[in-house]
Amino acid sequence: MAHGIIVAPVLWAEGARVVIEVGIVGGTGYTGAELLRLLALHPGVRLRVLTSRAEAGKRADAWFPHLRGRVDLSFSAPDDDALSACQAVFFATPHATSMKLAPALIARGVRVIDLSADYRIRDAEVFKRWYAHDHASPELLEEAVYGLPEVNRDAIRSARLVAAAGCYPTATQLGFLPLIEAGLIDTSNLIADCKSGVSGAGREAKVASLFAEAADTLMAYGVAGHRHLPEIEQGLRRAANAPVRLTFVPHLTPMIRGIHATLYGTLRKTDVDLQALFEARYRDEPFVDVLPKGAHPETRSVRGSNLCRIAVHRPQGGATVVVLSAIDNLVKGAAGQAVQCFNLMFGFDERAALDTIPLAP
Amino acid sequence: MAHGIIVAPVLWAEGARVVIEVGIVGGTGYTGAELLRLLALHPGVRLRVLTSRAEAGKRADAWFPHLRGRVDLSFSAPDDDALSACQAVFFATPHATSMKLAPALIARGVRVIDLSADYRIRDAEVFKRWYAHDHASPELLEEAVYGLPEVNRDAIRSARLVAAAGCYPTATQLGFLPLIEAGLIDTSNLIADCKSGVSGAGREAKVASLFAEAADTLMAYGVAGHRHLPEIEQGLRRAANAPVRLTFVPHLTPMIRGIHATLYGTLRKTDVDLQALFEARYRDEPFVDVLPKGAHPETRSVRGSNLCRIAVHRPQGGATVVVLSAIDNLVKGAAGQAVQCFNLMFGFDERAALDTIPLAP
Amino acid sequence: MAHGIIVAPVLWAEGARVVIEVGIVGGTGYTGAELLRLLALHPGVRLRVLTSRAEAGKRADAWFPHLRGRVDLSFSAPDDDALSACQAVFFATPHATSMKLAPALIARGVRVIDLSADYRIRDAEVFKRWYAHDHASPELLEEAVYGLPEVNRDAIRSARLVAAAGCYPTATQLGFLPLIEAGLIDTSNLIADCKSGVSGAGREAKVASLFAEAADTLMAYGVAGHRHLPEIEQGLRRAANAPVRLTFVPHLTPMIRGIHATLYGTLRKTDVDLQALFEARYRDEPFVDVLPKGAHPETRSVRGSNLCRIAVHRPQGGATVVVLSAIDNLVKGAAGQAVQCFNLMFGFDERAALDTIPLAP
Amino acid sequence: MAHGIIVAPVLWAEGARVVIEVGIVGGTGYTGAELLRLLALHPGVRLRVLTSRAEAGKRADAWFPHLRGRVDLSFSAPDDDALSACQAVFFATPHATSMKLAPALIARGVRVIDLSADYRIRDAEVFKRWYAHDHASPELLEEAVYGLPEVNRDAIRSARLVAAAGCYPTATQLGFLPLIEAGLIDTSNLIADCKSGVSGAGREAKVASLFAEAADTLMAYGVAGHRHLPEIEQGLRRAANAPVRLTFVPHLTPMIRGIHATLYGTLRKTDVDLQALFEARYRDEPFVDVLPKGAHPETRSVRGSNLCRIAVHRPQGGATVVVLSAIDNLVKGAAGQAVQCFNLMFGFDERAALDTIPLAP
Repeated sequence: MAHGIIVAPVLWAEGARVVIEVGIVGGTGYTGAELLRLLALHPGVRLRVLTSRAEAGKRADAWFPHLRGRVDLSFSAPDDDALSACQAVFFATPHATSMKLAPALIARGVRVIDLSADYRIRDAEVFKRWYAHDHASPELLEEAVYGLPEVNRDAIRSARLVAAAGCYPTATQLGFLPLIEAGLIDTSNLIADCKSGVSGAGREAKVASLFAEAADTLMAYGVAGHRHLPEIEQGLRRAANAPVRLTFVPHLTPMIRGIHATLYGTLRKTDVDLQALFEARYRDEPFVDVLPKGAHPETRSVRGSNLCRIAVHRPQGGATVVVLSAIDNLVKGAAGQAVQCFNLMFGFDERAALDTIPLAP
Repeated sequence: MAHGIIVAPVLWAEGARVVIEVGIVGGTGYTGAELLRLLALHPGVRLRVLTSRAEAGKRADAWFPHLRGRVDLSFSAPDDDALSACQAVFFATPHATSMKLAPALIARGVRVIDLSADYRIRDAEVFKRWYAHDHASPELLEEAVYGLPEVNRDAIRSARLVAAAGCYPTATQLGFLPLIEAGLIDTSNLIADCKSGVSGAGREAKVASLFAEAADTLMAYGVAGHRHLPEIEQGLRRAANAPVRLTFVPHLTPMIRGIHATLYGTLRKTDVDLQALFEARYRDEPFVDVLPKGAHPETRSVRGSNLCRIAVHRPQGGATVVVLSAIDNLVKGAAGQAVQCFNLMFGFDERAALDTIPLAP
Repeated sequence: MAHGIIVAPVLWAEGARVVIEVGIVGGTGYTGAELLRLLALHPGVRLRVLTSRAEAGKRADAWFPHLRGRVDLSFSAPDDDALSACQAVFFATPHATSMKLAPALIARGVRVIDLSADYRIRDAEVFKRWYAHDHASPELLEEAVYGLPEVNRDAIRSARLVAAAGCYPTATQLGFLPLIEAGLIDTSNLIADCKSGVSGAGREAKVASLFAEAADTLMAYGVAGHRHLPEIEQGLRRAANAPVRLTFVPHLTPMIRGIHATLYGTLRKTDVDLQALFEARYRDEPFVDVLPKGAHPETRSVRGSNLCRIAVHRPQGGATVVVLSAIDNLVKGAAGQAVQCFNLMFGFDERAALDTIPLAP
Repeated sequence: MAHGIIVAPVLWAEGARVVIEVGIVGGTGYTGAELLRLLALHPGVRLRVLTSRAEAGKRADAWFPHLRGRVDLSFSAPDDDALSACQAVFFATPHATSMKLAPALIARGVRVIDLSADYRIRDAEVFKRWYAHDHASPELLEEAVYGLPEVNRDAIRSARLVAAAGCYPTATQLGFLPLIEAGLIDTSNLIADCKSGVSGAGREAKVASLFAEAADTLMAYGVAGHRHLPEIEQGLRRAANAPVRLTFVPHLTPMIRGIHATLYGTLRKTDVDLQALFEARYRDEPFVDVLPKGAHPETRSVRGSNLCRIAVHRPQGGATVVVLSAIDNLVKGAAGQAVQCFNLMFGFDERAALDTIPLAP
């Protein structure tokens, strides 16, 4: 994390004069709500369109009472003309939606930030295997920029279409990247044991997400294969420039927000100062905080913020490296990441609207 | 709540040029942490002193990892000279501390905002009965201004010593005040059934506050008498200009933050538009939001914010009025209220540093 | 509670030789699961039929993994002949189901214990007003026995049709009854401020019951009118033999199980030993535990058990009496109550299968 | 798990005639409470002594209100004569207590079941390194039987001193043992990523265990080294008859009870039916339930019970095996395990007092 203590809000003097007209497609879920929370305080944003076919006509703050007094929009049915009048459109939709709607917007000059998975996987075949859909706009897959600023900052700046990185993939990649980029670990045997809060399952009414099902209990799921696996492997492979084999086990845990990735790898050499390596890798990153040696990040220390806090350990001085990586799945794992990309795309300070302090306890 | 939608942060152009030097006494608890969170983003504040006898020398962000990168202070032992160099000092101490330390600071021209109970009760005898301490500076009790801006805004502006209202008292008074000020309810038989999150018990290591004791369970406590009872009765009596009899039953509930007060009273007349009454009372208040008719506030809709959301009901059209009032106990019930008072005292926009959006889910 | 310490399980020597064939209609919800948990260990029960139209063919322990190894049933489509072969049938269905199916079973000699609301309200008009259904078998309303053993024990023993009392109604009535039966409180102005765990909303997939909606927050609901209001008023009116006016405010709280009723009334005379009154009223009740003077029951102290723990207070010695009453909504508020009624109906020890110790922490 | 459906409680006809006099040393913590809950319903136990120096004279049910009506004991100061009059004494003390008190009891013919760590590690030097105490009775280390019935059943039957296995060690060993005993995995690179509920930290008043610290958040801890590591390695080494290298990362998670171990290893050969292997290994075990292929155990499915539920996976058919193992840390991880050992030692049915159904939801 770029240190230096900030005791006053980031100043975005120039940016504040520019106001970008923004639309959100699919604003009834948690990532939509979080986009509204963040963008409502963005000095360079005017929220103009918020779509939901199901809730058209309803006020956003009736759905999300915490936004009362701060968001004065109602949901409207998706409408190409209204969206095309925006300069930027966020998709906070389930998968298989943006791949149908984004091409027309892009053709009309709108820049798109997609929070869904549709443009994350570069290989349409792989997409089809994991998402069970033919890709509706494979011609955009090559152009789409994977929205992880810590890897793709420059490409994001000029992108027409950004596929914001997923929640597990963000926590996992940020944890593994320093080791992989430095060629320090065996990429044929990586393990990511990840724990997520229940909001990661979305705001859909599902029995498994009920309070009485998910409270005071914990379980793994999707051990046989989870859709974030190919996304993570693709990112790590790119960094390694070599094949990667990852065992990814996600767990559902009784908290609202938060992802904690516990990452395991085997070091190729053990005479490296891992702490220094991580600190150097993220020195200039505004949202990655490498904790002091020996620390353990807790997810609440990033709650509501765009931060990723990371610690690196080598238990008993052995060859196994353990990386602990914590994010808020709805912020750095979704809406915050998308806003960070948006800031890069439109020349704002990267921290605009993201310059908050985590909420704890 | 003063309506009119705010889609960009409050501008405090002039205020930002003034910078007040601020000290916090007793910064190791939850209200201390919350003061740090809020004041670190206040454009008119320079945090200068943070005291804790027990943790002197330790960095604040070692105690509160969520503040890493945002607060660059270490705890120091309380020191009159250091504190006197501040223009404002907040006390985030247990009771019976500020009543000993505040007089010397005030004598040296420091303005004090006390988050503890020491100066809330105007009658030293009543204080002694409930807090089991002789008051150490009873001469200040008359001067001290009760820090509930919705009642005492003007007096707070010029106060040397503000006793910020307590958590239960804030939720309860804001809910009852419109009815009492209008003379609409029988003040001899009021009931406040209040539910608090566990952070209200502070950050002390106590068995009753352990996760394994307080999770997935709920209980009343202090039914025989709770220290907030005389504080609430005093405030309501002042509004009623008549004796008040309140039955106050607090409950410990398995949430981190939040107070929900469910208030019951008997209407003296029933042909009044209660909704209009409440909306009129709070029309110009920046932090009180009267919900639409029929609504039920949830505590998470104010989480992390200084808002009090209120709804008024008359079940089955009877003579019993039910008011629902929700706050975040650490913000409007403690640190946020104190910052609101501070803003008034030093001429800042009342919303400075408090202009955030609640965090939900 | 009938004291005398039990250090070994209740012996039901005679009962164990009788085995009653039992069916459960609608076993996919929480009350169904709880019936299975209790009845699987009942020495006098053979579970024979478990119906669910939607899940027919599926094993019960696939739905409820905690029952693996203990319940060897699969769901079947409702079938009159199969059910009629049982001696007792429990309905764990949403309302408006048992009123259609129970008459035929009763006509064929099956004794019915209904956990739904269908037969609780004696007046078909009142039922229709609150449940928005014409009653399908009003001719049974008079015969149906309200299943609250502490009031109706003898009638339950010989009943063909028992309407097990609801969750809020159980906690509320058990708390008010001693005062009302003794004529000690003004029944024109009763208040029941009730707090429920989320399992009370059932296992239906509803957004409001999601973990990310219901955790770490608290709200009132249904202040304008809740279906349990007429049920409670009916029970209290019967005890008072006079009109009753109750303000009933339920709250949704972030716990899985548990109801805590905080009850308020105005004493007609204050020179009564309330503690002795409550202890006398419940001396012989196996499942009502009057706590020592000054105590506050916590819901976890009854978790998983059929107990109701009660404390009575008179704050500051005034005319307001406060009763605290805690139950497990799925046990004494549903399945346990039903099993208690079943035990009475079939001559088992009333505690059979209910003789467990609450699970805490 | 020994299949065959049990629809009535286990009968322990013969056992019920024998009554063993039992003492508990250190009964004020969670494992003590859980011993009381289980033993109070044990048909062959008479609880005679319950010691606590700090709470001597206080009734047990004042500390643990859920035990009211079921446990009629008061705490007494530890007293050798009173304890020696028992046939069995359980130690539910912090470490470094039983190693001082147990020898005298054993010398007087009392059989001891120790829930603390004092006799788990066979090597006094290793004990000292991890627990920072010289062992006070190293002469008993060889005789002490490690209390994991699935490994040591016969030795437990005749033991004078049983060191009941720890919580993490139980979940981890039961998950790894089938693979290690069959020589199927590389023991030089095992990973145990374990998640525990907060009750695992005990009932001591510690800030880190407070509700407001531990709720809605998740963190790893002790990555550099945790005391359960040598215990687990010792057990696995014994099974492997070869050196073992384990990376053990415990996590604190926001639930009351429960441990979930996610175990990773590299298969030496992949043409083995792992499901069949696990089922065969645990076929006759009353408390180990191997779930069907593809399942994921949730901790609530064992809540309050002595079960360990296990699933084995081989993601994407690779060489990495993933075992999921869930227990209730206070039951199979502590008090239940101890009672299971006690049953073996005194000739009771192994399931006596443990024959309950998990509590879910």
